[in-house]
Parts: sequence; structure tokens; C-alpha cells
Amino acid sequence: MRNFLVTIQYEGSRYQGWQRQENTKNTLQAKFESLLTKLAGEPVEIAASGRTDAGVHAYGQAANFHMDTALTPGQLMGEINRYLPEDVAVVACREVDARFHARLHAKRKVYRYRVLNSDVPHVFDRKFVYQVEKPLNVEAMRAAASFLIGTHDFKSFTSAKKGKKSTVRTVESIAIERVGDEVRFLFAGDGFLFHMVRILVGTLLEVGLSMREAADLGRVLAACDRGQAGFLAPACGLALMEVFYDT
Amino acid sequence: MRNFLVTIQYEGSRYQGWQRQENTKNTLQAKFESLLTKLAGEPVEIAASGRTDAGVHAYGQAANFHMDTALTPGQLMGEINRYLPEDVAVVACREVDARFHARLHAKRKVYRYRVLNSDVPHVFDRKFVYQVEKPLNVEAMRAAASFLIGTHDFKSFTSAKKGKKSTVRTVESIAIERVGDEVRFLFAGDGFLFHMVRILVGTLLEVGLSMREAADLGRVLAACDRGQAGFLAPACGLALMEVFYDT
Repeated sequence: MRNFLVTIQYEGSRYQGWQRQENTKNTLQAKFESLLTKLAGEPVEIAASGRTDAGVHAYGQAANFHMDTALTPGQLMGEINRYLPEDVAVVACREVDARFHARLHAKRKVYRYRVLNSDVPHVFDRKFVYQVEKPLNVEAMRAAASFLIGTHDFKSFTSAKKGKKSTVRTVESIAIERVGDEVRFLFAGDGFLFHMVRILVGTLLEVGLSMREAADLGRVLAACDRGQAGFLAPACGLALMEVFYDT
Repeated sequence: MRNFLVTIQYEGSRYQGWQRQENTKNTLQAKFESLLTKLAGEPVEIAASGRTDAGVHAYGQAANFHMDTALTPGQLMGEINRYLPEDVAVVACREVDARFHARLHAKRKVYRYRVLNSDVPHVFDRKFVYQVEKPLNVEAMRAAASFLIGTHDFKSFTSAKKGKKSTVRTVESIAIERVGDEVRFLFAGDGFLFHMVRILVGTLLEVGLSMREAADLGRVLAACDRGQAGFLAPACGLALMEVFYDT
């Protein structure tokens, strides 16, 4: 069986997230598996680098699947795109080693969160930004973000129920830039917990709105208590930008 | 009565164009007049710089209306945006001379047409581009466009029925740039006839696809015959970017 690594873009607005679920067919994984199974004539499973929540977008989700086919990767990409709805597309496809796994081998991920910091609405990007009308203090948010860089237990910043899985992650960088009337957050790290980026953004926004001191972030991190962190920023502002592999 | 000049953005996909029509309420002018009439408590008419066709977008449509109100322009903009659907917004508002008219006083307009020149679909900009899979020859299209610059009778490039109105217009510039996997056309001129930009783009695309010689454009222009020009490019790729006034 050949193993294909695809790069996928989607506008998450219409979907119940990436991961297949019992109670709905409206997930991206279910769409892909149904389509690939039809193309292959036998059951195909697809493994993404990680799930994305309902409403979260992707510019560069990565996923792999095994399939017997005589098509080149380019031809296969064309076939898949022919059947995908217009808010999903495969933008790259290549063949990889049979043992490659998109989740297990992911080394690094980059997420972007877009905040429209203006009282004038965005017509064209309205589905991709979270609007905050009051002015944000970018310098204060940068100071707060500096407490988060490095390898820490991010238990305060996840909605995941208590479990055996480690909540230690390494955040390599958090860049916060004002771009026109937007404030954009770029997160790079080895992996992110359930809701982690959105809770980090919510907490940083509370600093940017002077509801919380920048230095408070150190305390929140050390507390390992979700109750100490800020609000869950809406899904619409978030996008998975890129997943990196050694291969 | 105070006179307000507003800059309007809209995603045209859902609308039957700007201009009020007898047979539908689904035009931008009708939406604005209904909303402004409610705000004012008496009938308000709005005059745009020009109509845009069904499906055409605007980043900077200009329009004016007369209203008695104690609100500042900023407050009025906020009130209007509160009631507009999310695919329309007023992004600027200022008070102008009582005699100012957005159509009659428009000096210059800039339109942009976006062509996705790739066989890979665009997820995020799909409603704002026209996809042409075959490679376009940008140099040939630039050579063709040079025949169109200046003051000419553009009768070949309009769908308007024969009438008494002049079909002479001045096209100041046509910039054609490759931006990533897109080819973008930027048109500046004193005004454009019904369907003119879209027929210009359709004809230039036929040159870009080697279906027509660049020098053919001179002949088409001189013919004053719509039948000699190329196809009507789809509305979705077109956007009115900016309208210029002396005031």
C-alpha cells in the first residue's frame, strides 16, 4: 500500500471540527474518509497531525492515508479536489515512507489567531477574525507572553479533563503583531493541548485590555488550574497554519 | 438637511447588485434605503458612485444621502453598521457640501479583477477569484492592454443596448500583475460602461490563453461592435476598489 501525505486547507465555519464523531457526519475526517473510500473501492482511514475544534480553520493541516492506486500524487490530488466541497481543498500531495504517521511524527506546529481590533466590522475577513472593539495594549501582551515561552506544564491552559496524558508542552515562540486594524498572534511549538491556543489568546487579551497584569501569567502557569486562566477565545479567529516533519 | 458621504464595503455574492429594482428587495441600495429611512423616520434615498452588477464586490463603493440627525458622522456610521448584515459595512463616513453627489462628482474609479491561475482551488478566496487553470501569458496581456489606454469609444466593450449616451471613456491605466498563484488586473479611469471591466478582462484573458493576438485589441476597439470582443468574465472576480472626488 502506498502512503500519501497531503496538505489540506479548510474554512472550518461549517464543520464540527476535524475528528470523526459518532453523532455527526459533518466532520472533515468523515468527509475525507468517505471520499477516499469511494476512490479506493475499499475502506481508507486518514490520520491528521491533530484534531482542530469546530469552527477552526486550516491553511496547512497535514494528514496521511494508505491507498492502492496507480495515480501520481498530483493526479490523486486532482481527483480528491474534484469531489471536495468548495470550502476544503488539498493543496499538496506527496508519497512518503510506509511507516510515516502525520500525528506521531509531527515535530512542530504553527497556529495563528487573528483579532480585529476596531469598532468597524470586517466584511471580507469576518469569518476569520474575532472582533475586539476596545484598544489592545500589544506591549503588555508581549510581556505576558514571555512568561509562556519554554517547556512548561500547561494544565491551566486546557479544557481537557484530568487524565493520564502529559500536559507538558514546549512553546517555542509567541509573536504578537499589529497588522493594520488587526492584532495577530502566531504560536509555534511542539504541540498544543485541547483548547490551549484559544485559552492562551483569551488570557493574553485580558492583559491587553488591562483586566490582568502581564506578570500574572507566571502565576497562572504555576497554578496548573484552568480556573486561573482567561476566557476561551472564539474558534473563528484560529487557524492551523503549518505542520513540520523531519521527513 | 445634512449630506453624508459614506465608503461602503460589501461581498456581492448574495446580492442582485447595487441598484434598487422593482422585482427584488435584494439589492444593496434597497437595503441601505430601508435602513436609513428607519433611522431617519422619513424617506431617505442613497446615491452611489455607480451601480455594481449582481455578484460584484466593493472594497470602496462611495455613496451619499441627505438626513436630518444630531449624530456625528462616526456615531451615524456605528448606527448603520449595527443594522447592516455581516456582508456589508460602512467603513468611513463624513459630512460633505449639500450639493455633493456621489455619482455626478466622481472623478476617477479603480476596479480590481482577480484571476486564480492554477489548477489548485482557493479555499479562502474562492468567492473573490475567477479560476483559470491554463497558464496565462501576462506579457501578452500587457501588450494587448496598451491598446486600450487613453480616451476611446468603448462600444465594443459594453453590454449596454444602443442608446443616446456616450460610450466614450478614458482608461488611465491597466496594471496586470502576477501575485502568487493569481493574476490581478487593476483598472483606473474616469468611468466604466455597463459590463466594461468584465468584457475587457474576458478579452485580455483570451489573449493570455493565446486564443487571440495582442494587436487584435486595436481592431476590436475600432470596430465598435460587442461581437468582436471577448467573453464576459464572471462577476465574482470583480471588485470596485476606490472612487475619487475633488472634494
